[in-house]
Amino acid sequence: MQGKHRFFTAQSPLNGVITVKGSDARHIGYSLRMKINDRLTLCHGGYDYSCKITNITADEVICEVLEKTPIHSEPSVFLTIYQAYPKQDKLESIIQKTVELGASRIVPFISKRCVSRPDGKNFRQKHIRLQRICEEAAKQSGRGIIPEVSEIMSFDETLEDMKSSELRLICYENGGQRLSESVAANALSNAASIAVMIGAEGGFERVEYESAVSGGITPIWLGERILSCETCPVAVTAIIMNITGNI
Amino acid sequence: MQGKHRFFTAQSPLNGVITVKGSDARHIGYSLRMKINDRLTLCHGGYDYSCKITNITADEVICEVLEKTPIHSEPSVFLTIYQAYPKQDKLESIIQKTVELGASRIVPFISKRCVSRPDGKNFRQKHIRLQRICEEAAKQSGRGIIPEVSEIMSFDETLEDMKSSELRLICYENGGQRLSESVAANALSNAASIAVMIGAEGGFERVEYESAVSGGITPIWLGERILSCETCPVAVTAIIMNITGNI
Repeated sequence: MQGKHRFFTAQSPLNGVITVKGSDARHIGYSLRMKINDRLTLCHGGYDYSCKITNITADEVICEVLEKTPIHSEPSVFLTIYQAYPKQDKLESIIQKTVELGASRIVPFISKRCVSRPDGKNFRQKHIRLQRICEEAAKQSGRGIIPEVSEIMSFDETLEDMKSSELRLICYENGGQRLSESVAANALSNAASIAVMIGAEGGFERVEYESAVSGGITPIWLGERILSCETCPVAVTAIIMNITGNI
Repeated sequence: MQGKHRFFTAQSPLNGVITVKGSDARHIGYSLRMKINDRLTLCHGGYDYSCKITNITADEVICEVLEKTPIHSEPSVFLTIYQAYPKQDKLESIIQKTVELGASRIVPFISKRCVSRPDGKNFRQKHIRLQRICEEAAKQSGRGIIPEVSEIMSFDETLEDMKSSELRLICYENGGQRLSESVAANALSNAASIAVMIGAEGGFERVEYESAVSGGITPIWLGERILSCETCPVAVTAIIMNITGNI
């Protein structure tokens, strides 16, 4: 029997015991008012640990592991969404939905047409909030890992960072080929890691598009209808997870 | 040359002239401060009419048609999203995003687990707002029609209404087959009309699921990760539009 409350933990079990500390411990003790003998699920390194609480102190919850089960919910592909920084709180909704659908890393970056351009210092506070949304979405959707929201990058840093993925794509609205035309089906379904670069409100400038393509990134076109910048990453993630057999 | 402002109009051209009335006319004259000889695009019955304004009065804008072009942005499949009524303003975001992606009709309905259950009277005001969001999304994304948000339906009315679609699906989270397993690829890509039934926050009760399936509706399962009720319709619309070659 799994506990209905589920937490990610940085600590692996030691002699069949996991000790929860910090804000999660306070949440379990104070907010959820859980008691000794209550059940909960702790998630670490791709496994769910069904646990029984054996002790609660002011800042620690001691949990005895009853059962260890592998988490099947992780997609077979490691998808990184490189999202040009959008206006308002749209990035929050993008992170929430792409994480539910299976994205494993989100990289915000600054492109020429970004209206909102937080610098490193401004972004630090936002980053904490974005990472929390990421963790919350991972918990709610039953992910096996907490996807990472990276530091904000420049356009050039983004192109460099994308090199770590096997298959690299850029969404470009000014014509081009559809996903199914520009990428061979087996290249998509066999890639262990996919990176997708998505524009903010105004899309990409031609020079950015050209610099991405000359760097070996494949342009994809999402059809005749103009998608808002909140819809595009969600649609792309859903479609890639479908094509790779993960939805 | 197309005008950058685009309006749907109920009136077809008469002797090469379209007369815009009502709130659109006021919007053109007062908010946009457009003048005689300015260009705009009027959309009617699957065509874009590039027009020049020849006269503006307090409540009418007279437009001369310069060019008529068919609108290519309409998907080849008529997709109806049957969405169990969600909490808060989630239906607004669902309508906006599914319309951008190509849904042609949205039917809100009440299922057993709906927390928000507006009756006909409460819904009337909301309906006006939802239809406006629908029109706005259709304009922004360059659709050729304004999708309709229907009146709110009961569960049984929904099952009856779905009979007008060739292919009928229900999203069910308690296991089942993936879209690609439960529906033959050619059934999906050849269907002229598809209906998808999607639950609200708590999903469907077993008895609802069984009554849908016994009524000939095919269950589909969106994989191991639990999607929030805002994400599910967006993901399903994107995937269907991709499989049918419309994204």
